[in-house]
Formats: sequence, C-alpha cells, structure tokens
Amino acid sequence: MNNFNLYTPTRILFGKGSIQELRAQIPADARVLITYGGGSVKKTGVLDQVHQALQGLDVLEFGGIEPNPTYETLMKAVELARAENITFLLAVGGGSVLDGTKFIAAAAQYPQGVDPWEILETSGSKITRAIPMGSVLTLPATGSESNKGAVISRKATGDKQAFHSPWVQPVFAILDPVYTYTLPARQVANGVVDAFVHTIEQYLTYPVNAKIQDRFAEGILLTLIEEGPKALQEPENYDVRANVMWAATMALNGLIGAGVPQDWATHMLGHELTAMHGLDHAQTLAIVLPALMNEKRQQKREKLLQYAERVWNITSGGEDQRIDAAIAATRQFFESLGVPTRLGDWNLDGSSIPALLTKLEEHGMTQLGERKDITLDVSRRIYEAAR
Amino acid sequence: MNNFNLYTPTRILFGKGSIQELRAQIPADARVLITYGGGSVKKTGVLDQVHQALQGLDVLEFGGIEPNPTYETLMKAVELARAENITFLLAVGGGSVLDGTKFIAAAAQYPQGVDPWEILETSGSKITRAIPMGSVLTLPATGSESNKGAVISRKATGDKQAFHSPWVQPVFAILDPVYTYTLPARQVANGVVDAFVHTIEQYLTYPVNAKIQDRFAEGILLTLIEEGPKALQEPENYDVRANVMWAATMALNGLIGAGVPQDWATHMLGHELTAMHGLDHAQTLAIVLPALMNEKRQQKREKLLQYAERVWNITSGGEDQRIDAAIAATRQFFESLGVPTRLGDWNLDGSSIPALLTKLEEHGMTQLGERKDITLDVSRRIYEAAR
Repeated sequence: MNNFNLYTPTRILFGKGSIQELRAQIPADARVLITYGGGSVKKTGVLDQVHQALQGLDVLEFGGIEPNPTYETLMKAVELARAENITFLLAVGGGSVLDGTKFIAAAAQYPQGVDPWEILETSGSKITRAIPMGSVLTLPATGSESNKGAVISRKATGDKQAFHSPWVQPVFAILDPVYTYTLPARQVANGVVDAFVHTIEQYLTYPVNAKIQDRFAEGILLTLIEEGPKALQEPENYDVRANVMWAATMALNGLIGAGVPQDWATHMLGHELTAMHGLDHAQTLAIVLPALMNEKRQQKREKLLQYAERVWNITSGGEDQRIDAAIAATRQFFESLGVPTRLGDWNLDGSSIPALLTKLEEHGMTQLGERKDITLDVSRRIYEAAR
Repeated sequence: MNNFNLYTPTRILFGKGSIQELRAQIPADARVLITYGGGSVKKTGVLDQVHQALQGLDVLEFGGIEPNPTYETLMKAVELARAENITFLLAVGGGSVLDGTKFIAAAAQYPQGVDPWEILETSGSKITRAIPMGSVLTLPATGSESNKGAVISRKATGDKQAFHSPWVQPVFAILDPVYTYTLPARQVANGVVDAFVHTIEQYLTYPVNAKIQDRFAEGILLTLIEEGPKALQEPENYDVRANVMWAATMALNGLIGAGVPQDWATHMLGHELTAMHGLDHAQTLAIVLPALMNEKRQQKREKLLQYAERVWNITSGGEDQRIDAAIAATRQFFESLGVPTRLGDWNLDGSSIPALLTKLEEHGMTQLGERKDITLDVSRRIYEAAR
C-alpha cells in the first residue's frame, strides 16, 4: 500500500426527506446563492423545497449552469456573487452544477484583476480561499458532492480542464434518492457509467497489495452492475436508487483511491471527445475505457485478471481469454444501459483523431496513466481502437 | 437503506514515516499534553519520535493509561490538563489511550463542580466542548482514532461504560504500520478480533438492501481473515500490517454502519466479562459472538446465510448447515489467532452468570441487539452457551 493523506470532511445527509436537515447546515447570517442548471429542479419541485427550507435567510438564485459548465456562464455568477456579497453557495443539481459552483466559489474570492481562468491553468494550486458551499444532489454520478475536484469548459477555446482545491470541498451534501426518480434514462445511465469508470480509474492499475481499497472498489462495481439496470427498469425503486446514489458518492470521495496508483487516462481522452464533439461525459468514457483496457492489457494484467474473477466471476480459460471476457463484459454492461461503446455509434469515423491528439498535447496530456506511459502515440492507438 | 448522517472529519495520515506530518497538524501556539500507556512507546522509540517532531512546542506528558482506561487514572490527567492550561491532547498508543484521552478532553472542559463521571452516565450527551485531540496510533484495533466514541471503566464500582460526542472526534490520526511490528502477538490477535467483531456488529443484523455497506463490511472481514494470521506469522510484513491497520480503522469510523441496523450486544455482554473477570476486550468478544450468532440464528438468518456465502464461501448444504458452518468458521478463525472462544478456556464455569446479568441490568442493558430483543433472559442463554 502506498502512503496517503485522506481527508473526507463533507457531511453526508442521506435519505428520503433529508432536505429537512438543510437549514441547520447553513450559518444563520448567511447570504446564500442557490445555483442550478437548466431548470429541471424547478419542474420537479426540488427548488421549491430548498427555498422552503431556507425561509428567513437572504437567498438569491443563479440558474442556467449547463452540462460541462462553461467559464463564460460561470463568470456571470462570479460577478453576481461579488456584487451581492454572497457568503454561502448552495448547488442544487448534479455534477455539472456542483463543479460549476466550485469554480464560482473560488473565482469570486480570487484576487481582483486576475482572470480566474488561471484556476484551471494552475490546476487550482493558487487558490487560498473560497466561498463555503454545500449541495442538494439530484443526479448521482460524478462524486463532486464530496470531493475537492471540478472540471470546467471554455467555449471560446474548446478547452475542458480540471482543478482541485481543499477550499472548494463542500461542507455538506443532501442526498435524497427520491430526487432521482424523475431523471431521464440517459442521465441515469450516464451516472452509472461515470461512477463505474471513476472506480475503475482507481482500481484497474497495478497491484500494491491494498486489500481494503480493492475490496471496496469491487463492492462499488458489483453494486453498480446489480443496480444500474434496475434503476432504469424500476425508476421509483427507492433502495435501488439509494444504492446507485451511495455508490456514486463512494466512487470518488477519495476513499478507494487512497494509497493506490490511479490512472485517469480514460477521463483525459474522454474530455477531448466531449470538448470537440459534444458527447456527454459518460458517453466518452464508455467509448474509451474498453479500448484502453485492451491496449494496456500487459501493464494492467494482474488487476485485469482480478477484475475478471471478482467482479465478473470469470474464472475459466487462459489469462488472455479471461481478460477478453472481462473487457467484453464491461462493454456489454455499458451497452445494456443504452450507452454505446464505439465512436462509430456516434457517426464519428476517426477523422478527428489527429485534432484530438493536438488538443491532448496542448493540455499537457502526453504522459497519462498510472505509469505515465500513455503517450500521444498510445492515445492515438486507443482512439483508433475505439472506432 | 436507512437514512443516515455521516461525518468523518478525522484526517488520516497513513504510511511509513507519516510521523513527519505530525508537526503541521498541531497549532503553532498549542500547549500539548502527550498521553500514553504502560511505557511500550518509550521502549519502541515512538515517544522519542513524537517529541522530536514536536520540538519547539510546549509539551507535557501523562503516562500510565491502562488497558480498559479507568476514571481513577484519567482524572489525574484531567487535573494536570486543567492546571497546565493544555490546549491540545496527543494520544500515542492504542485504543485504550485514545479512549482515555477522549475522556480527558471532555472532562477537562466539563463544568467545574460537576463530577465528570456524569459523562458516562449521560453517554456523552451533555458534552458541549472539549480540548482538541489527535493521535499517533500504535495498535490497530478499536477504530477509536477516527470516531467519536470511547469506553471508560471505573475501578471503584467495576463499571465499564461508553460515551459518544462529536467534540471528542480526533482531528487527525497518524497511522504508521511500522509502529505495529513490535506488538506482542496477543495484542495483534486481539486487534484483529476486535476489528472483526466491530464489522460484524454493523453487518450481521437484518438486510435493508444496503449493498455498498454490505460489500464494504465483507471486504473488511475478508481482509482480516486473509491478513490476520499473516500478521502473526510475519510481524514485519509491511503490507500485511498496513492492511490490518487500515481494516481496523475502516471497521469503526462510521462508514459501514451508516444506513444499516446495528447490533452491539456482543460488546455489551463482553464489557461485563472484562469488568468482572479482567479478560481482554477482544477475548470477551471471541467468547460471546459465536454463542450469540447461534442464539439469534432465526432473527439473523438472511445475513448469516449471506455471511456464510460471501465471507466463507460456504454454498452447499441446507440453510442451517450453512449457518452452523459459518459459526464454526468464525470460531475456528478466532482460535487460529490464539484467542479462545469459550468461558471454560479461561477457567470460568459460568457461576458468575447471575452476577453478570445483574450488572447488565444495572447498566440498562436489558433490550440489546438490532431488534432490542436480547433481554436479560436471552443474554443468560448466550452466556450459558458460551461456557
């Protein structure tokens, strides 16, 4: 096991009706800015419930944070937060609203006169303060509700980049599985794929004999495999929604990644696909992961075999057969959720691969993966194999 | 899944040499009281390393906190902490030192004129402040390094009682597996049994379809089963020690118990055995648990069958056969670690059972277990079956 420093201070308020706990989490003298996305939280009534819970506080709203939240949109909220002296941000929505709100939190208190895009250029390392924030989660997927990371896009340049800072770790997260009943199937499926790949990025590397981390990761994968399809078939099955929601949070709160190597190449290659072609985040992961597993089968051999056995119960056949079967099972799982696993399924013929590689290079993504051996040439082979 | 409120703010600094992180965790103007036990931390050099790390700070020491830390001893430290205006407590040792230091932390700031034994009588509910504390852990077992609970004994009355308060949750825990190399085999074995039973108390109840919690609990149990015996056979195998240490912390930081029923009857029956007969905490758990599993086989049937299959790979035979096999495997596991599972192994013939039941009654332990159906009569049957 590798050394680690694990800090998971976000308070989780989980379950039906947990909105009742919201008021007590926010300082009584706070000036609150509620942030949300395209308006589904209005239709579902969640936003009303939030307002009701916050009665008596100074509350403003900022809506319209898009999927793959953009610098351009978020800077409007930054101006509002500064002008209105906001002291608490409450993200109501999914990972995009969370991530966007993290950017608002840090950017609003970034030095005047410095363009907050620097936060992305410096991966968050220069952040020294932020407006405290919490969330009411409506879409289980990214884990952003209890970690310190965010991914922000920039329309003008087609960039999609990440930052991390302890200053933007949410103080609390309200997780009510009932809020997820009304999600479109596509978002449910995307969320399951996203959480699955988050787990894989921290698990499918090389063994360091970290048995708890491995067992926990496998537990998350098994849960997603069991519950993901059910979440689509029985949208109002509370326990299924609860298990998916908790799995997604656990997949990226730092716990399973503590003390183990991490990959994240699938995410980096996926980000470029989203930025260039507009595919949903999870849709890109489902395309890249199977191709990457195959490309790195030598380097990931031991963990691929462990994954085959413990997650998919594949125990017969030679090593390469078992690895093939595990990759096929992964692909089949994504497709069973309605998420395609080939570029061709999106009418992409691979002609953009040179441009994708250029973007990867621009973003410094030339030595990816747990061994930093996914060079641009390897990335090219992965994109090509994903056609 | 049941609703839950999960807060795990203790920062974990894990791994070889993590003592180097100690200094940065303590305020620069702190007056620190280091607390420790019988002196093994002097022999092993850990205490020296702590002093070295804290050079430049005002540091005092309080040694002699015994296993099953007593009110009588701890009150001396409370006086010292008050007299010396201590502002930070650093527990260096295992669960007893941690638990004792939690009591010191709360008692030192308890209202003057009120006997701090009230903390135990009110289960910690009246605590409104405490001296902040951290720890350097030398014995993986109790999980006390990252939770808000403690168990304190009182010599004068033979009581052993628990309290919980968010005020005594440690700010950080330094977990260096190397510090555990020199532990006596008995303490290593006790630690594995303790962590195992902590996990069981939160797992082996009735199903609420909490798949992540179940998988995580099973992951901890499987890890302890794999690594426990190796920790005894290869005391300086770093990875083995690391896995045991991390398993013990994860077993009782609140995570696997969030959203699920909890039992804790084995602990309550065990506490009375320690208080009356002086057995080590874990030794009492190894005696009570198999008898309790058998006594509650109807009420715990579904989880016992799941435990049999997923933890012990017992899949053939009728239901009762599988349950019998799982109980036998549990007993065999404890005994393989050198921890006996019968009262008779300690030359106890059961004649103290009426007195044990009287103590349980005195302590209000008349409706134990996840269904509150372990009455004194059931406890009597469990003690008798454990002879």
